[in-house]
Amino acid sequence: MGNSFGKLFSISTWGESHGPGVGVIIDGCPPRLPITAEEIQVELDRRRPGQSDIVTPRKEEDRVEILSGIFEGKTTGTPIALMVKNGDQRPGAYDEMREKFRPSHADFTYQAKFGFRDHRGGGRSSARETVGRVAAGAIAKKILALSGAGGNRGVEIRAFLTQVHDIVAPAEALVNFPTLAEVEATAVRCPHLPTAAAMIERIKAVRSEGDSVGGVIECRVRGVPAGLGVPVFDRLEADLAKAMLSLPATKGFEIGSGFAGARLRGSEHNDAFENRAGQVRTVTNRSGGVQGGISNGEEIVFRVAFKPTATILQSQATVDIHGEATELMGRGRHDPCVVPRAVPIVEAMAALVLVDHWLRQSAQCGTFEF
Amino acid sequence: MGNSFGKLFSISTWGESHGPGVGVIIDGCPPRLPITAEEIQVELDRRRPGQSDIVTPRKEEDRVEILSGIFEGKTTGTPIALMVKNGDQRPGAYDEMREKFRPSHADFTYQAKFGFRDHRGGGRSSARETVGRVAAGAIAKKILALSGAGGNRGVEIRAFLTQVHDIVAPAEALVNFPTLAEVEATAVRCPHLPTAAAMIERIKAVRSEGDSVGGVIECRVRGVPAGLGVPVFDRLEADLAKAMLSLPATKGFEIGSGFAGARLRGSEHNDAFENRAGQVRTVTNRSGGVQGGISNGEEIVFRVAFKPTATILQSQATVDIHGEATELMGRGRHDPCVVPRAVPIVEAMAALVLVDHWLRQSAQCGTFEF
Amino acid sequence: MGNSFGKLFSISTWGESHGPGVGVIIDGCPPRLPITAEEIQVELDRRRPGQSDIVTPRKEEDRVEILSGIFEGKTTGTPIALMVKNGDQRPGAYDEMREKFRPSHADFTYQAKFGFRDHRGGGRSSARETVGRVAAGAIAKKILALSGAGGNRGVEIRAFLTQVHDIVAPAEALVNFPTLAEVEATAVRCPHLPTAAAMIERIKAVRSEGDSVGGVIECRVRGVPAGLGVPVFDRLEADLAKAMLSLPATKGFEIGSGFAGARLRGSEHNDAFENRAGQVRTVTNRSGGVQGGISNGEEIVFRVAFKPTATILQSQATVDIHGEATELMGRGRHDPCVVPRAVPIVEAMAALVLVDHWLRQSAQCGTFEF
Amino acid sequence: MGNSFGKLFSISTWGESHGPGVGVIIDGCPPRLPITAEEIQVELDRRRPGQSDIVTPRKEEDRVEILSGIFEGKTTGTPIALMVKNGDQRPGAYDEMREKFRPSHADFTYQAKFGFRDHRGGGRSSARETVGRVAAGAIAKKILALSGAGGNRGVEIRAFLTQVHDIVAPAEALVNFPTLAEVEATAVRCPHLPTAAAMIERIKAVRSEGDSVGGVIECRVRGVPAGLGVPVFDRLEADLAKAMLSLPATKGFEIGSGFAGARLRGSEHNDAFENRAGQVRTVTNRSGGVQGGISNGEEIVFRVAFKPTATILQSQATVDIHGEATELMGRGRHDPCVVPRAVPIVEAMAALVLVDHWLRQSAQCGTFEF
Repeated sequence: MGNSFGKLFSISTWGESHGPGVGVIIDGCPPRLPITAEEIQVELDRRRPGQSDIVTPRKEEDRVEILSGIFEGKTTGTPIALMVKNGDQRPGAYDEMREKFRPSHADFTYQAKFGFRDHRGGGRSSARETVGRVAAGAIAKKILALSGAGGNRGVEIRAFLTQVHDIVAPAEALVNFPTLAEVEATAVRCPHLPTAAAMIERIKAVRSEGDSVGGVIECRVRGVPAGLGVPVFDRLEADLAKAMLSLPATKGFEIGSGFAGARLRGSEHNDAFENRAGQVRTVTNRSGGVQGGISNGEEIVFRVAFKPTATILQSQATVDIHGEATELMGRGRHDPCVVPRAVPIVEAMAALVLVDHWLRQSAQCGTFEF
Repeated sequence: MGNSFGKLFSISTWGESHGPGVGVIIDGCPPRLPITAEEIQVELDRRRPGQSDIVTPRKEEDRVEILSGIFEGKTTGTPIALMVKNGDQRPGAYDEMREKFRPSHADFTYQAKFGFRDHRGGGRSSARETVGRVAAGAIAKKILALSGAGGNRGVEIRAFLTQVHDIVAPAEALVNFPTLAEVEATAVRCPHLPTAAAMIERIKAVRSEGDSVGGVIECRVRGVPAGLGVPVFDRLEADLAKAMLSLPATKGFEIGSGFAGARLRGSEHNDAFENRAGQVRTVTNRSGGVQGGISNGEEIVFRVAFKPTATILQSQATVDIHGEATELMGRGRHDPCVVPRAVPIVEAMAALVLVDHWLRQSAQCGTFEF
Repeated sequence: MGNSFGKLFSISTWGESHGPGVGVIIDGCPPRLPITAEEIQVELDRRRPGQSDIVTPRKEEDRVEILSGIFEGKTTGTPIALMVKNGDQRPGAYDEMREKFRPSHADFTYQAKFGFRDHRGGGRSSARETVGRVAAGAIAKKILALSGAGGNRGVEIRAFLTQVHDIVAPAEALVNFPTLAEVEATAVRCPHLPTAAAMIERIKAVRSEGDSVGGVIECRVRGVPAGLGVPVFDRLEADLAKAMLSLPATKGFEIGSGFAGARLRGSEHNDAFENRAGQVRTVTNRSGGVQGGISNGEEIVFRVAFKPTATILQSQATVDIHGEATELMGRGRHDPCVVPRAVPIVEAMAALVLVDHWLRQSAQCGTFEF
Repeated sequence: MGNSFGKLFSISTWGESHGPGVGVIIDGCPPRLPITAEEIQVELDRRRPGQSDIVTPRKEEDRVEILSGIFEGKTTGTPIALMVKNGDQRPGAYDEMREKFRPSHADFTYQAKFGFRDHRGGGRSSARETVGRVAAGAIAKKILALSGAGGNRGVEIRAFLTQVHDIVAPAEALVNFPTLAEVEATAVRCPHLPTAAAMIERIKAVRSEGDSVGGVIECRVRGVPAGLGVPVFDRLEADLAKAMLSLPATKGFEIGSGFAGARLRGSEHNDAFENRAGQVRTVTNRSGGVQGGISNGEEIVFRVAFKPTATILQSQATVDIHGEATELMGRGRHDPCVVPRAVPIVEAMAALVLVDHWLRQSAQCGTFEF
């Protein structure tokens, strides 16, 4: 409890930054889904460090191993266990962290909570834990991709950067649903190329100063049928918000109009309904695809704010586990901006939420006909 | 499932806007807590319509009845059932809603999900459902208030408005933890009086035009010990985010630096540690009281964005349940701005999250000594 | 947590023996089910005291009130709240129990657990709590009854007594699935009339001595499709066992061959498969309708053991809340044998388990086709 | 969901008989518990095949690997991942099972449920899955053993055989709490040596005939404080019943007087209270240590019935996946009686239930003092 997510399509992750490995169990996956290690690997490779010159040069091969639940290329309906072994460890590289609390990291709070911690690379609090999420998310994405029976294209999830530091992509440049190729075209995963170029420049600049920057990811989902989400607590946006705020370094979530919506009048904000091609649709989409906690068939649109990477290559004031004032000099191989690598993680979490709610909707509203 | 919240201090709400009543069951409340109906009533009265001239004039007496779980003035540890009967119903007032989908309401999505709905006043999707949350939250707040053993003042939760439409309270006016009296001093629950006056004026202005506005609530919590929150999925901010996005009309959540934090560098954003009065404390609080998903003992600070009320007294284009284009004229008694009345609801949800995590922390880390 | 049961069709009960009432919330009920208060009342009437001359003469009218979740005669898919007000209370009748622990009741353990208890009539530990279960079970039974699409008769659940004290119905008399009329024909709900007569005589005899007796209920379910039950922990028999052992006064559960099966050889116990009318069926049914935790389409057959009623009209040695030795003289209006009234409760719990698993099976294995 | 057990001390198992391995994640383990792989191995060795001449001669080394959650010999409070690799696999040995349903195995029901199955050695339905339970149970047992503060000996769990086929240990021979040495003295784990000798003889006899037998395990737990168990659904006996019925081959559960209790009168069955050494105790223990769903401080005593092993070395009638009648000849290396090897599994499940409820009790009733 605390390390599991999802009610019907449920994942449980395990593993620390510098233990033998990290992994995930998926419980509740529908049977007979065709899935291969290679398909999972594709998503892990998108998350992996060392993909470009603006991310950490740490080498993590991150090969997924399937330990259970998939037989002869198809899911069996029993728990799927996936593991990625850790590698490229540098014993001793983290000795200083045994005693000193890194500012804005989880060192102090883990110590305060558990009275004991695996200090190596942040232990369990390391973003390496998200390997399991991405692996499970790859399976969820495959389910969603295949969900579109009869000519439908299935559900597509596309996350991308709209902001790094104070560089913001112009809204009018992001009207269309970006293609995967557009997102993956640059190392920052912003589909607007001029903005992407500026972002890359900024990241290189702050890195050269031993500093870091944050940013914002937007995620859009199309093809979701109306009806997903369970009022009153498990609203679709509530579960998406939880999913996103459960990611390391996130500080905010907004859906549809978000915080800007607070500045509008009702007459400006309401999404009028219309009949479009025989379907009830909204003319605008300030709701972000969710009304009353339930998907309405429009594009789901949400944004997630990431703080700047806490690890900086500068000297910082802190205290040690004895309460003594000290200084800590950041070292090692860290991302000056984690946001580009968070793109597949955001997509994975969105996929997990959607599959879970799809199963829930099917159970409650699709099992019995009266 | 879907109508319950919390793992150890768990609430389940029931009821519709125009049924016999609304209510809540609280399961897992610690035994022997002294609590009276009057203490619960205080919070319900803060939420109640008709408190001032800027909210809906609907008369809802909202008297809480204790049906179980409290004996001779103390909780027994068994489920606490609370009910508030509905009143002031106007049969026929909602006949038009039986057929027409109100824009940016949940009428269409409930119909799409369940194939059937109680259309009267929004049925289950009505904000009247939050009565149960506030009643349960009153008990959670009492627990937190009494949690401060030995001179400690206990945990205090204070929510208030920082924004209505484009009127924003100046940050420097809100440095100190506001008192309850300061918040309750005006009908808009903004402790900065000049801002409050402008907000009230704006709300009256939009009301006179049959329109509505949104706003932002900030919530601060002090007295929370370090250690609450369970990585990796049940991070404190993740559960707070879910709690807030489960409220009607919310569109965004941010903690600490939030979306603005994305515009900072790591060297500007990090909270340096210091030893203050023998305690590990942070010099600044851009983390918002949570690091790595776990409270660090600083003030917890988060904000919630509310969209403008969907019901407006203007004609809007929509479709009916047969898919035919039609018009809908808003009618009745609605809040031109729901945000002031959402203040006790935000506090209630925050209290529920905190008590739940306090119990979880006690269980995992406080039961066995090795 | 602790007062809820079921994962997808979830019930939460509340209420004490001598508080204002008892009730239940059902979360996850499929929408559009036609159901009336009268249909629920039928099951409550079967459970109600005062039905015959061998049960307690307490008068409890037990009228169910529907508070939410049912609109215009159909379920809406939102929480169904049902309440039954308590009546026929005798203030003061339980004063002695405030101080003295009744042997083999829950007085001592509630005091030990919670440090405080509502002593009146056992408070929460009273079997009156099962009112909520029976009310919810009536809805579950209706779902099951309507589940048989296309000529199928739906799922039928039939519980009945096979034993009171040492009077045991002969196995050969219970080969056929009893009709409801056969079960309800006598006050003891044993469909074998000669055995029923002997049971009634025995109950009257022990009552005249101020004593009590236990018994055994068998429950059979037919019409359940193969595939319900989730290995490895939520096996169908595991959830049935939990459901039954959660009932007051139960001491044992067995499915199929049960404890007697331990005395057989594998060659005697195994159920051979055969093709019957195009279906894979078993020739015998020592498995009791469940193999590997999953229903196999055969009749589900289980038995539940009930201890004799703890309240007896004799003087018993005990201690009081101060630890002093004392005596307690049973008084009041109690059942000398609770087992006949437990029949509808066992059926209700079985129905709840089956609907829950049906929804789970539909979700995992019936949502996506690959 | 379905492959997890426990609410606060939660385990999730994964793995199939003939996949790469089997394993478990434990979420919610208290931090700072000293535990080694060797301590876990001790319990796995008790469960392992090939321990004696009356169990299957399959060689499974079953070495546990700790993958996460334990650092420098102590638990960190984060998920503990344990894995045991599979070995001694015989490719092709199970080819016949691909098409034919073994009687009283889970082949047919897995096929019916999932539409697809890993047929090799039963796949997920194999008792090999219990490796993960035993590994997790070893940690739970360590917690319980260390729970006895101040001279107390902690909680001890002792399971043993009381019956094999129709050979039953005399009740008077099992009055005292058996020592571990007494249980482990013979291959059948019955502490009464003459009975053990007869059991062994019987098992050898049926094995020589290619047949199998069932049996009964009794489990006793001493040192449990009063107060564990959560009414009304998560009663201690309800969770124990579910735990036991979730084990392969189990057909029944009873606590205290069990089914025999149904034959007693209330005056014979009630456990009188007395003050013994300053504690409220019961003179007898027909309740089996639980009253009203809550432990009362007496020995917890329950029994579990196991059916005879379904795999027998005889020809049996069955059908294949095409519905055709066929015959199946049991082959391979199987236990003629699984019950002796189930002893550590029963203990493991009991330990898991008790730790879970201990944490729950601590949370609800031990966190806040009012």
